[in-house]
Amino acid sequence: MLINELPRYDILDESSLQELERGWRRIVSELGIDFLHDEALAAFETEGQKVEGQLVKLDPDWILHQVAKAPREFDLQARNPARTIHIGGNHMAFGAVYGCPFVREGIERREATYADFQNLVRLAQAFPQLDTPGGTICEPNDTPLDSRHLDMVYALMTLSDKPFMGSVTSGPNAEDTIALTEIVFGRESLERTPATISLINVNSPLRYDDRMLSALLAYAKANQALVITPFLLMGAMSPVSVAATLAQQVGEALAGIALVQTIRPGCPTVFGSFLSNTDMQSGSPSFGTPESAVGLLCTGQIARHYGLPFRGGGGLTSSQTVDAQAAYEAAMTLWPTFLAGTNFVMHAAGWLESGLVSCYEKLVVDVELLRMLHHVFEPLQINEETLAYGAHQEVLQGGHFLGAAHTLERFRECFYRPLLSSTDNYERWARNGGKDAAARASDVWRKTLEEYSEPELDAGLKDELEAYVDRRRKELGD
Amino acid sequence: MLINELPRYDILDESSLQELERGWRRIVSELGIDFLHDEALAAFETEGQKVEGQLVKLDPDWILHQVAKAPREFDLQARNPARTIHIGGNHMAFGAVYGCPFVREGIERREATYADFQNLVRLAQAFPQLDTPGGTICEPNDTPLDSRHLDMVYALMTLSDKPFMGSVTSGPNAEDTIALTEIVFGRESLERTPATISLINVNSPLRYDDRMLSALLAYAKANQALVITPFLLMGAMSPVSVAATLAQQVGEALAGIALVQTIRPGCPTVFGSFLSNTDMQSGSPSFGTPESAVGLLCTGQIARHYGLPFRGGGGLTSSQTVDAQAAYEAAMTLWPTFLAGTNFVMHAAGWLESGLVSCYEKLVVDVELLRMLHHVFEPLQINEETLAYGAHQEVLQGGHFLGAAHTLERFRECFYRPLLSSTDNYERWARNGGKDAAARASDVWRKTLEEYSEPELDAGLKDELEAYVDRRRKELGD
Repeated sequence: MLINELPRYDILDESSLQELERGWRRIVSELGIDFLHDEALAAFETEGQKVEGQLVKLDPDWILHQVAKAPREFDLQARNPARTIHIGGNHMAFGAVYGCPFVREGIERREATYADFQNLVRLAQAFPQLDTPGGTICEPNDTPLDSRHLDMVYALMTLSDKPFMGSVTSGPNAEDTIALTEIVFGRESLERTPATISLINVNSPLRYDDRMLSALLAYAKANQALVITPFLLMGAMSPVSVAATLAQQVGEALAGIALVQTIRPGCPTVFGSFLSNTDMQSGSPSFGTPESAVGLLCTGQIARHYGLPFRGGGGLTSSQTVDAQAAYEAAMTLWPTFLAGTNFVMHAAGWLESGLVSCYEKLVVDVELLRMLHHVFEPLQINEETLAYGAHQEVLQGGHFLGAAHTLERFRECFYRPLLSSTDNYERWARNGGKDAAARASDVWRKTLEEYSEPELDAGLKDELEAYVDRRRKELGD
Repeated sequence: MLINELPRYDILDESSLQELERGWRRIVSELGIDFLHDEALAAFETEGQKVEGQLVKLDPDWILHQVAKAPREFDLQARNPARTIHIGGNHMAFGAVYGCPFVREGIERREATYADFQNLVRLAQAFPQLDTPGGTICEPNDTPLDSRHLDMVYALMTLSDKPFMGSVTSGPNAEDTIALTEIVFGRESLERTPATISLINVNSPLRYDDRMLSALLAYAKANQALVITPFLLMGAMSPVSVAATLAQQVGEALAGIALVQTIRPGCPTVFGSFLSNTDMQSGSPSFGTPESAVGLLCTGQIARHYGLPFRGGGGLTSSQTVDAQAAYEAAMTLWPTFLAGTNFVMHAAGWLESGLVSCYEKLVVDVELLRMLHHVFEPLQINEETLAYGAHQEVLQGGHFLGAAHTLERFRECFYRPLLSSTDNYERWARNGGKDAAARASDVWRKTLEEYSEPELDAGLKDELEAYVDRRRKELGD
């Protein structure tokens, strides 16, 4: 895992933080938030919050009192203990793209299938820069809808031994995720240290819907980690102002986190951010924008202010293909992701076309970006050894360091070694087919998939998982 | 001009700065630096420095005493006063790519011509994100070598009214640059406020060659701005260690700056950095690397420590084509360029293939990156107006902000508007030809060139420039 010991890049001053504080407090207390689930409403009522139908007007001080019960950092256990990750503090965990109905492979764009789902999980397992395959790495459209969550969780648990994200499509589907996880980890271990982390999106503005709340409640009761994320495309789900959107984001996220802490005090909960803007010319969502970069830097600072681990960033882009735009927009999001010290990074690899497409080649491009940024965010050592005065003494004026003893001892490991980038001179590059980065990325993921080997899993446990899936599939009528 | 009021991202602690200080001091005092020019050697001798043949062993305290005479910030005047730029402090100035023998236009890569030179200067004039076309925006290979500098300076002075960079191929060529500049600005004005800025590369390690020194001396005597830049590809011109390379960079740069201040105290001088690494597998130079990003962040901090404006960064890449690699490597350099608050950014647009190629499409990609980063590095305003509480009151729970009064009043200007990026949905994008960013960039520069109009210049002055060029061309035998 990356432990980012470089400084955080904080751009908000104290008075800006105070203005935001004032902003979210009046939103939650004067306007309130809809919670479309009776159990949630009852929980708020018991805690003395003003419940008017489905609308809850919240006391900001109560919210902060509840939020303070969430741990500042926590472990997320993997079935392979060596792959257990830590979320919070200086740690950064990276997951693959999540939620795409389509895949792109070379120049082919098509509906995603279960075979794609499996292949993408295998790739996420294979690249060490990804700490988790995430969850819905693509939508397996060729599996029956009612039992699809079972297929996904089964693939995540068998093809990868990294931590994974649970189903949030309903409360019962969340229960299935927990039951499958329990088979491998045991209930006691699971409740002590979460083995799943799940994404609860707010139906912004100011509304938590029934399905998300039922999943939230199920996971919270089992002490499974939750990422509470206002879904904010400025101009659609929030005002066309970064400041207003940040205030809304704080209010929405903290209200959900307070609910989780009411259901299960101490449940690991992550302050989530998914903040970009609408392209006001086309009406389309727009990713990798300057506004989203600024929002990300601010969100990191805000989450730390409330003592919460936070989720944000990734390799986001609106581009339709793996071109220069896809790369610069991904970089435009990944740089602030690192600068903000983002603790949990969904969509870190494979995101294309505003999240509609999970792309094999883009996944490799993003992994290269992650590898590079890992190097940038390693503290630089400046001391007598790294000053290498002996090398200067050997080479002197007008000489060449290629043959210096200092170089020969270190040339293999001294610099970043790319996975994808080429420094070939033009003639050599042209002779080798003149492949651009997207074409080379295609070679990389194919080779990675060929070399993939399934991580071991006790045969008895695997049988139990299968039996559970089969039984539930029948119950669901698929 | 961009005034970057966001914080600097400093990653070196006090003890690292002290180690670097120790490092460069022993390099210049114990090993010394070659200066292959008698006038420079004589100047060092007069100042009491140890001159042994062409080698000068320098007293670090004397260096710092001289360096302190350089201004912390200065103006660089343009013939159009509205385009005069300020170098230093929080100001950032951006110039186009410099020094490429080839150009790339679409899929065609060819030797650069004078027509390319002119077109690229026109583009640099047209894009407001570029504060200067720079100088050798490409090498006009179809013009006679001896008088080529005249053609370039003439094009820079007539096709653009932005400040430009002077010829450094020899002392006499620098004199020609100054003479041409004098025609338009007058000697007195020129000496009061420089109208040219010129790049002096150190022939690293630890050597200033004759041609660069003769240009340095000519410009310094006329009080024209100089960028003193160690040329450092780690593994070739410096050790395979960022720390050692930074120490060498400080020693080499400060020694040259001290020389400039000895010749002309107060002459505007910029601490230059061109620091990347060799790909130790291929032996080729490698740009847009993690090491260069780290070096850039450190260089900014170091230059500020010595009270000097600094040059570094740009849109560097080793990619052979305008693909994802070209874009992510450019972003990998441009982000730290902004984070470090780089005062003078050469190669900010158009650089391709490790600087061998000046590329029309890449120039547009980089301009888009600059436009985005300009937005990111604008301080965010958080106050009652931007909190837009009225918009929340209007839309409430589960609503939509597209039609809100707050949105309708601001939708044209509220977000960054891209030059190149597309948010079109897949169907629309495919219907419009499925053009990737490189293909769209081609459309952008062609349209920009069509719409270009030559900035006015007094006909008498233009005649004088022409007459000077003609006379000198004859004298040079071309």
